[in-house]
Amino acid sequence: MITKEIKALFCNIVDAENYDDSKVGRLVYSYDATPQYQSMPDAVIAPKNTAEISEIIKICNNYKIPIVPRGSGTNLCAGTCPTEGGIVLLFKHMNSILEIDEENLTVTVEPGVITLDMIAAVEKKRLFYPPDPSSMKISTIGGNINENSGGLRGLKYGVTRDYVIALEIVLPNGDIIQTGGKLAKDVAGYDLTRLFVGSEGTLGIITKAILKLIPMPETKKTMLALYQDLEAAARSVSKIIANKIIPTTLEFLDQPTLKVVEDFAQIGLPTDVKAVLLIEQDGPLEVVEQDMKKMAEICKAEKAISVQVAQSEEEAENLRTARRSALSALARLKPTTILEDATVPRSEIAQMVTAINEIAEKYSLDICTFGHAGDGNLHPTCTTDVRNHEEIERVEQAFAEIFQKAVELGGTITGEHGVGMMKAPYLHLKLGEAGIAAMKAMKQAFDPNNIMNPGKIFAKDTRKRVVVEK
Amino acid sequence: MITKEIKALFCNIVDAENYDDSKVGRLVYSYDATPQYQSMPDAVIAPKNTAEISEIIKICNNYKIPIVPRGSGTNLCAGTCPTEGGIVLLFKHMNSILEIDEENLTVTVEPGVITLDMIAAVEKKRLFYPPDPSSMKISTIGGNINENSGGLRGLKYGVTRDYVIALEIVLPNGDIIQTGGKLAKDVAGYDLTRLFVGSEGTLGIITKAILKLIPMPETKKTMLALYQDLEAAARSVSKIIANKIIPTTLEFLDQPTLKVVEDFAQIGLPTDVKAVLLIEQDGPLEVVEQDMKKMAEICKAEKAISVQVAQSEEEAENLRTARRSALSALARLKPTTILEDATVPRSEIAQMVTAINEIAEKYSLDICTFGHAGDGNLHPTCTTDVRNHEEIERVEQAFAEIFQKAVELGGTITGEHGVGMMKAPYLHLKLGEAGIAAMKAMKQAFDPNNIMNPGKIFAKDTRKRVVVEK
Repeated sequence: MITKEIKALFCNIVDAENYDDSKVGRLVYSYDATPQYQSMPDAVIAPKNTAEISEIIKICNNYKIPIVPRGSGTNLCAGTCPTEGGIVLLFKHMNSILEIDEENLTVTVEPGVITLDMIAAVEKKRLFYPPDPSSMKISTIGGNINENSGGLRGLKYGVTRDYVIALEIVLPNGDIIQTGGKLAKDVAGYDLTRLFVGSEGTLGIITKAILKLIPMPETKKTMLALYQDLEAAARSVSKIIANKIIPTTLEFLDQPTLKVVEDFAQIGLPTDVKAVLLIEQDGPLEVVEQDMKKMAEICKAEKAISVQVAQSEEEAENLRTARRSALSALARLKPTTILEDATVPRSEIAQMVTAINEIAEKYSLDICTFGHAGDGNLHPTCTTDVRNHEEIERVEQAFAEIFQKAVELGGTITGEHGVGMMKAPYLHLKLGEAGIAAMKAMKQAFDPNNIMNPGKIFAKDTRKRVVVEK
Repeated sequence: MITKEIKALFCNIVDAENYDDSKVGRLVYSYDATPQYQSMPDAVIAPKNTAEISEIIKICNNYKIPIVPRGSGTNLCAGTCPTEGGIVLLFKHMNSILEIDEENLTVTVEPGVITLDMIAAVEKKRLFYPPDPSSMKISTIGGNINENSGGLRGLKYGVTRDYVIALEIVLPNGDIIQTGGKLAKDVAGYDLTRLFVGSEGTLGIITKAILKLIPMPETKKTMLALYQDLEAAARSVSKIIANKIIPTTLEFLDQPTLKVVEDFAQIGLPTDVKAVLLIEQDGPLEVVEQDMKKMAEICKAEKAISVQVAQSEEEAENLRTARRSALSALARLKPTTILEDATVPRSEIAQMVTAINEIAEKYSLDICTFGHAGDGNLHPTCTTDVRNHEEIERVEQAFAEIFQKAVELGGTITGEHGVGMMKAPYLHLKLGEAGIAAMKAMKQAFDPNNIMNPGKIFAKDTRKRVVVEK
């Protein structure tokens, strides 16, 4: 509850136009990209700088007011839904690229920078920031860091965590700390930098980041391998890696996904095949050509019915864009789209794809599957309707089985979307009670009053995944 | 203090031959590779498996007995010196390579495996584990993980942290947890895997690890660039990176180091130059050749007086071995060798090298400098004699200035050796009081009774770096 007195304290810190407790203003930030989670914040604050954030958080800590840092809200785990009310903190005034350092190959950013804007800025200097979540056109770097976002280039280049080398953080007590540096190596104490990456705004507020860049690869090639057999496609993925080729991108789309994506994007994707692999390699020209040739051979040996290399960068970009639009395309089919990201070791992809299809059949559900096959990171996606309670019950049971299966195969309940509220009821499958207890102790150490994005990561009592009672 | 009753509890867990409280047995484990730190443990225990460790740690936690996990003790930060007595835990029975998974490109190991043995085993399968600390012939993987060890290939491939993807950990309360998996992506809760890497045995005991491997590079080339000007060598390092070439190895040795290394290794190193860069590139042949050519041009443009490419793998291996033997070679000069690892952004190497030389002159000390120049990770090394109290006083002042300078240049007090006891008095320079407070809160969360390797990372009262009063 924000009383008049507390509001006055906040308004002493930020200008009046940056404190909004109007109903409309709060409604806009009552939800994020995750279906079916909504909760009204008490106020929305847009600070101008780190010092203001430090003052704001001190008040929150003093009065035990929840605070939810939020970028563009594109996450899919209800990670920025203000579940317990309180403050939603916006970074619209903290959205500058502060420096591109060509000697140390780093970029320094404020959290509100749009991912793609930053990627474009560094590419102008022939530098490369690999993490490319599908939402990168609107997502912010701050959001990417808090969720440890992945993307299509993760197989070869890793995820957001692999590129964050320094952070400025405001802790719940108002302390401002600096972690890491423009350093290839730093072992001065615990690695707070990597700990905060993927901490979902539950430990403190990231107010600045230094990201590692790498030289821009010389060239890139793209191809599609078409299959009439899902498992053959999945086997091709394992075989490519086992043959010691690490392509930049190795994406999988099944036929239902292909059909809706083609319907949406109209770029001439094949819709008469059971699955495709979208494969990309980058690097020096000779290496790329050699790898593409070898991968095409492996796919054919694994019963790909055809392998087509994109003939232009435009065609390649169309294919990538089509893949990135899979969620948007599927979302058109039915009122509710539940996109998950169960992840398994690469060697288990074929088994996981089979299991997903069996589970979909068992519960009579429409589950399309696409995703980052090279990472073992699949996105089984169910198109459904939350108003159909009977079906939603089946959806819940099906996803619980999918998570259970992923963990059985040595996998995890979430590869890149985060836990948030959505996966919290399943976290014990991966971590066990002892693992959760260790993480809760850490949370308690940083945030004893539980003001930082409360209700996320750690489940309360509910096991319901889709519909949350208010 | 281990009473007879407590000893009986331990001896119920491990066989009699794996519990040693003889004076000789304890003396052997009273110190590690760090000069001038020594403290007697109460007993040395060599458990056979994780279950035994869980039982042992429960007793330690119950009776507040310190426990120090120890590999081969090659660390240079007094990280495994049993400062406050208690148990030294050995991994000599837990030294198996459990699995090399060629489909997922992983190796699963127990902590006691010797680093080089594991590297050799995976290389037989054409797989590559890049971290190669100079001590790798005798260091253990468990030690490498706890210290987040670096090495000569860190510039291109990163450090130990970048290859640890899953851990089995025994927590101070005896809980056994599993983190991560054979997974390219996992965001199920906080990243305990990376947190434990580099935690110096202060949070729990690592009992198993899964490490990521990558395909073996096709080829490798090695060259030496010779300079009559230290700063020209340092500038070459920055220029190479700024030209968007990331070589595997980019090592720096100054003339004093060259002289002692040549005296020790006798392989015909040039001793009449002020500095050399040892440069290596690996990858596909065409790329390697192109990069080597470009780097040679950059070195020459920066006033290298000569650039010599190794004509055979034997010659290249000699050069690498010579570089790795720098510490051993320097250690022959005087009774005491203090090797440090202040680290700066790559762009600041020239400034840092200059500062080190100025500081050495100011305090009339012999400080040689070598190290991983490409990482900005230098090893200023002072040959001295701890019995000369007046000189040691100057050594302390000189290193304090070196650390201060590194931090001023945006660097850190330790790039790869860890904090241990040695750097604890300087940690505030890098982290500030707020950063240290945050780390202490984490330590308290995991280890409320402070049994895990107490006295490390966090300084008590002393600021003395070399001589520790007992």
